[in-house]
Amino acid sequence: MAATPASASVSGSTNTDSLDLDPAFAVHRGGKLEVRSTIPVRDAHDLSLAYTPGVARVCTAIADDPSLADDYTWVSNVVAVVSDGTAVLGLGDIGPAAAMPVMEGKALLFKEFGDVDAVPICLDCTDVDALVETVVRLAPSFGGINLEDISAPRCFEVEDRLRDVLDIPVFHDDQHGTAIVVLAALQNAARLTGRSLGDLRAVVAGAGASGVAVTRILLEAGIGDIAVSDSKGMIYQGREGLNPVKEALARDTNRAGHTGSTEEALAGADVFVGLSGSTVSEQAIASMAPDAIVFALSNPTPEVHPEIAAKHVAVVATGRSDFPNQINNVLAFPGVFRGALDVRAATITENMKVAAANALAGVVGDELSSDYIIPSPFDARVAPAVTAAVAAQAAVDGVARR
Amino acid sequence: MAATPASASVSGSTNTDSLDLDPAFAVHRGGKLEVRSTIPVRDAHDLSLAYTPGVARVCTAIADDPSLADDYTWVSNVVAVVSDGTAVLGLGDIGPAAAMPVMEGKALLFKEFGDVDAVPICLDCTDVDALVETVVRLAPSFGGINLEDISAPRCFEVEDRLRDVLDIPVFHDDQHGTAIVVLAALQNAARLTGRSLGDLRAVVAGAGASGVAVTRILLEAGIGDIAVSDSKGMIYQGREGLNPVKEALARDTNRAGHTGSTEEALAGADVFVGLSGSTVSEQAIASMAPDAIVFALSNPTPEVHPEIAAKHVAVVATGRSDFPNQINNVLAFPGVFRGALDVRAATITENMKVAAANALAGVVGDELSSDYIIPSPFDARVAPAVTAAVAAQAAVDGVARR
Repeated sequence: MAATPASASVSGSTNTDSLDLDPAFAVHRGGKLEVRSTIPVRDAHDLSLAYTPGVARVCTAIADDPSLADDYTWVSNVVAVVSDGTAVLGLGDIGPAAAMPVMEGKALLFKEFGDVDAVPICLDCTDVDALVETVVRLAPSFGGINLEDISAPRCFEVEDRLRDVLDIPVFHDDQHGTAIVVLAALQNAARLTGRSLGDLRAVVAGAGASGVAVTRILLEAGIGDIAVSDSKGMIYQGREGLNPVKEALARDTNRAGHTGSTEEALAGADVFVGLSGSTVSEQAIASMAPDAIVFALSNPTPEVHPEIAAKHVAVVATGRSDFPNQINNVLAFPGVFRGALDVRAATITENMKVAAANALAGVVGDELSSDYIIPSPFDARVAPAVTAAVAAQAAVDGVARR
Repeated sequence: MAATPASASVSGSTNTDSLDLDPAFAVHRGGKLEVRSTIPVRDAHDLSLAYTPGVARVCTAIADDPSLADDYTWVSNVVAVVSDGTAVLGLGDIGPAAAMPVMEGKALLFKEFGDVDAVPICLDCTDVDALVETVVRLAPSFGGINLEDISAPRCFEVEDRLRDVLDIPVFHDDQHGTAIVVLAALQNAARLTGRSLGDLRAVVAGAGASGVAVTRILLEAGIGDIAVSDSKGMIYQGREGLNPVKEALARDTNRAGHTGSTEEALAGADVFVGLSGSTVSEQAIASMAPDAIVFALSNPTPEVHPEIAAKHVAVVATGRSDFPNQINNVLAFPGVFRGALDVRAATITENMKVAAANALAGVVGDELSSDYIIPSPFDARVAPAVTAAVAAQAAVDGVARR
């Protein structure tokens, strides 16, 4: 909360009437969420069941058998959307208060697309130990933890440590949501162009949360070769000053041994995945292999304009809703958590993520075309397909508790 | 979350079908809350305003002027109901998971009675430092903190420290909710019997959260004399082994110098307030002064049966809904927070609590009788009256930010 009264704000005189001329502000006025009762409380009888004295019998039963919390509280349906506000959209470290509209939006999407109740939690701490400790303390209140907009490389350690200590799903959506949707789209793009993932050599621009996770899931799925760049150029073994996450990437990627710029590496490549906020020239795109695939995912400005890219390659996708083939995390996270919660999964395995991608790719089916490699977020088949695949894989992997 | 699968629970074979024969369990199945969107998300246009790219403009505006979070997020309407599960109802230390049904119930009452959105947060830590630190980290996500069912004396230090460091309302309802309603009821009981608070000598059984807070608000309101007992008898200056909270109570109370049992102190007393879970004999009640007032508030079993007490005293109240004059916190906390949030109060002052009690007492008006010293929780006049009084007093006290 701001200690500063509105009338003496930092900017001195923010006029919210004028802000509301922007429809995005008008939509946000008063916030985007509410908490409601799912049961009636009309009279003293209702109150005596939902609250004292009736509630005491439910509490006692859970104290005796903790597994009953799954049946008699909302915990097994509720996900915390946790951020520290350090890497919000493309805006960077804007802090927890300013991150709240994104986290509210995420919670709204959880409900609308996955019927998952979600609570936005913006934390006033950025230290890894503090973040982990706080989420562990919060965990009895939630059936899952969706980490969001936490900057790299801290996000990797926060997620890894929480996955180790908690027995509920922990999922950093900037990593794995993006990875799932990219894998699904790339599978369909490969199918459209008559190839398998093993035939493809990919270049990923960006070694932040999403770049790392996309690279990992593509390796897992058997991509032919993949190389990753950051702001200093391609990541390779022996490059000076790599952090541990990038060192591990260097070991596992770039068999071709690219050491120059992203654009140099694109010559002859089959796939470009842009997750960097940088730009790529038309010339570099034109230098790619025949039937190339370009996912220019930076938002709001793709690394290369999709219409420019389309002149040279077979398939183009972006993160934007105003072009075909929108790579949007909302295609993944609602169904991933819905499926995990439905079977009380103790964790979300790599297999469950790949199953989600396969299910998502499968929704496209025979309608596959260069303008339709991935379904629309508003396709009602998406969340049920992802949910079913994730729940089934959880059972196969032995992490389902019901 | 329970790590134990339902099929291998601690009790071995909890049959939830049979549990559901109890209507309290049936009501609780699946939990009692949901999070919903307050805005439509029907198509890509809606999504582009509620989420990316539109949301980025709102985030940027809040980063520039933090006070805008009040206008463009749900934070200014949402209260965290925070517990560590150490003093749940009369059940004691049952832990955070088993406390959840109560915290969900509280959140439900916040919405139904005060149109306040509330999120139940059951924390897996009991150390005072850890509780304070965790709530401070959570604070950017909430417009107020309702502490609940945290055992004494830790609850006093947790609340005091949070009030010191946070600039949003922090309110331990077990203390102040009870205190507000008791003060309101006692004002009306005194009026009914032709006295003022200054004429009354009171005995409070119980020096936990509610006993201490009731004593403090009655002192603040000018009670004639008041003495408090705990499980070892009356609290007086010089008694061995008092903790700091009880030592302070000993200094400020018991001018009459009672050193024996609660029952001994009741001889000739005007008011008994039971907040202890113990029992008081009919004989002790009969020994009170003429026109005595008995609030036997332990739940579900009052310290003395209300029909027995009524044979000897002028006014009887309990915590139960099946007798007249129910002292129920729901008469206070929804309006207290609604009023505080409406004016963006930085804190809840003592005056605001007394104003809430006065407003609550005032709802009874000319209908005052021995069976009607306090309104019903379902009286629609209650929350608006409390809200208005609290908001107005916040302005008078200089803690309102709008």
